[in-house]
Amino acid sequence: MKRTADLKTEILVVGTELLTPYFQDTNSFFIIERLNDLGIGVAFKTIVTDNREDLVGCFRTAMKRSRLIIAMGGLGPTEDDRTREAAAEALGRKLVFDETVSRSIRERFRRRGVSMSSSNRKQCYVIGGAEVLTNPNGTAPGLWIASGSRRFILLPGPPHELKPMFEKDVWPRLRAIRSGFTLRRVLKITGMPESLMENRIRAVYAKLPPEVNITTLASPGDLQIRLAVSGVGDPASSEAVLGTIEKLLLKKLGENVYSRTGETMEEAVGALLRSRGRTLACAESCTGGFLSHRLTNIPGSSSYFLEGVVSYGNKSKNRLLGVPLSLIREHGAVSGPVAEAMALGVMRRSGSDYGLSITGIAGPDGGTEAKPVGLVFTGLAWRTGLSVEKNVFFGRREIVKFQSTQKALDMLRRRLMEEEI
Amino acid sequence: MKRTADLKTEILVVGTELLTPYFQDTNSFFIIERLNDLGIGVAFKTIVTDNREDLVGCFRTAMKRSRLIIAMGGLGPTEDDRTREAAAEALGRKLVFDETVSRSIRERFRRRGVSMSSSNRKQCYVIGGAEVLTNPNGTAPGLWIASGSRRFILLPGPPHELKPMFEKDVWPRLRAIRSGFTLRRVLKITGMPESLMENRIRAVYAKLPPEVNITTLASPGDLQIRLAVSGVGDPASSEAVLGTIEKLLLKKLGENVYSRTGETMEEAVGALLRSRGRTLACAESCTGGFLSHRLTNIPGSSSYFLEGVVSYGNKSKNRLLGVPLSLIREHGAVSGPVAEAMALGVMRRSGSDYGLSITGIAGPDGGTEAKPVGLVFTGLAWRTGLSVEKNVFFGRREIVKFQSTQKALDMLRRRLMEEEI
Repeated sequence: MKRTADLKTEILVVGTELLTPYFQDTNSFFIIERLNDLGIGVAFKTIVTDNREDLVGCFRTAMKRSRLIIAMGGLGPTEDDRTREAAAEALGRKLVFDETVSRSIRERFRRRGVSMSSSNRKQCYVIGGAEVLTNPNGTAPGLWIASGSRRFILLPGPPHELKPMFEKDVWPRLRAIRSGFTLRRVLKITGMPESLMENRIRAVYAKLPPEVNITTLASPGDLQIRLAVSGVGDPASSEAVLGTIEKLLLKKLGENVYSRTGETMEEAVGALLRSRGRTLACAESCTGGFLSHRLTNIPGSSSYFLEGVVSYGNKSKNRLLGVPLSLIREHGAVSGPVAEAMALGVMRRSGSDYGLSITGIAGPDGGTEAKPVGLVFTGLAWRTGLSVEKNVFFGRREIVKFQSTQKALDMLRRRLMEEEI
Repeated sequence: MKRTADLKTEILVVGTELLTPYFQDTNSFFIIERLNDLGIGVAFKTIVTDNREDLVGCFRTAMKRSRLIIAMGGLGPTEDDRTREAAAEALGRKLVFDETVSRSIRERFRRRGVSMSSSNRKQCYVIGGAEVLTNPNGTAPGLWIASGSRRFILLPGPPHELKPMFEKDVWPRLRAIRSGFTLRRVLKITGMPESLMENRIRAVYAKLPPEVNITTLASPGDLQIRLAVSGVGDPASSEAVLGTIEKLLLKKLGENVYSRTGETMEEAVGALLRSRGRTLACAESCTGGFLSHRLTNIPGSSSYFLEGVVSYGNKSKNRLLGVPLSLIREHGAVSGPVAEAMALGVMRRSGSDYGLSITGIAGPDGGTEAKPVGLVFTGLAWRTGLSVEKNVFFGRREIVKFQSTQKALDMLRRRLMEEEI
């Protein structure tokens, strides 16, 4: 993010459990995104245990180097919750009993038919001079503290308390201080390796104005290009710049771009099926139901998804899909002809408009020299035609499964796009 | 983690992209786990952009408060890679050209048939007095620096370079400084809400020796209790302590514990099926293939998983599973009798030993007052019997799907356990 030098910003995440191998902090990703929306970048994120001395030290360090300090976690009622005390010590302020906070916590307990526990009493103390941010979803209030040109914000750790509080009470206050913006675009791409994508778009990089931030994310079968421009004032010219770059990228990447508004592949395919009033059925072997699972993760998919068959064994392929056993004997279960027969079979038997099939070797075992692990055939049947693709995917079992379903969905997506014309 | 006061440890993660909403740092979780294995806890983790001044500041702060400092990222050949320079500045040392590193980078390029790019030249400079850690998987060498009682370790950011380097060159050096240990146990639990589990094990908490760290992780349908003991010297007594606590927990939680060695539910079920030489087929409605997907994520599952049917519509339930349309008319597709008929149907048609079925309303739409979103029936058929369970799960679509498959798998697991007796 550009343009942050004037409001150096730092995030402090408090929680001993976040320094174990088991817990990821997710709050800060939400906070970073929302700060970016105001054109505010984050310079430091520190994760610290609930050790009081360490916490005070982190606040002091933050005060030396940053002007906006957002701390989260450690505001609860237990002994281990020390963020309030540590911030007060670093700021050289006292904790004062707040009657309004006390009343609201007591009221919260009363509504549940219990009286306030004594441990909650510490939550009624706030840092002197702080503005209290009410917490409708928990007992810990947030605090907004102005100290010279610095702003301190203390937020509770549980995401369902932090997020609404940030949206309601923090973001508007920050916007009043700094009315910048970040505009974003995301393109999702499939059907090409990362290196090929990089080659195709190299020329666009060269034309990139310095204020545009470009990030690529790559995982097998799925690529993303993210564009961001931060600024202050009127975003119209930045909007135009982003639009121009997006157009250049689309020209270079063509139909490999499956998403321009953040939707997943299964959402993109689902929207196309729905808008054309078409239905789908799936027959899977090595992906074991993952294709149906992805399609049915979309709310309302029952309007276009009719059925799925996971035919692991040859007998199932024959009984459930009508694939002739002689065809399997001749070509093997992992073969183009069997993929075609599976797609046709599931389409005809279910009465759907499209039949999608996958047969392959997901690994790690079962590969041979002629048919290695990762060899996958994907088939697509429609009322007047049939197509099949052969690929060899790399990676462990789950990654082969993902790439196989991605390829199958992409075949259907491209077919549906063609039919539009 | 206990016993860390004598080797205060800090992790520095360098990378502007890690302060955007899109990238999670994963290296530090690996590092924390491996440090814990030596009984070393981590007090701070700071994520910082590649701004040179900020980086130098972070190193200076770390030097004031920590004795072991592990920095990762920012050792590459580009202008944005500034970790080496920043660490040298903070340490007050010079960067010196290292002939051995230069030779190894040139050799690396030669093997690929290209000559070393000029930008890689900066990677040949190392901090004066540092031990070089060779990088067989990339150009950036790691550095091990002793400075008084402090140790600085600089590691490359790409995980496939960092991890082998850490294992080969860093861990053994750390073990020589500090030969502690951390022993761990993990129990995975299902079939009870978190609050019930907490109630059941409260008495165990009270008996917990202070050196034992207990952590619970809760997600819908899946709970974990993690135990850890850190120490130095002979781990035998800690081993015994952990064993005793584990036994107490097992007694309190009984058959709800589905995993004691880290395995997933689908692995636990797969191992039981395999050891008893039994086979399985699945019929799913609202989970849309997720049950089959989970089962077939396990390598070798083709030896016990025969087939799956995703019968979204009533016609599919009738044609693929033989569920009478009159039964669906009478009770509704989401009902106990239909779940039973699905489980029986898929077992009989596939010839499997067990049939597992799920029918329900995954949401967000499709619920009624009598049959709300989250209402799910899971059925299990075996050669001599049949059972069905009714649950109402909360959460968004994917979470309802997960809990439904977890419940179905757990029914089969408990049945397989009973048959053992």
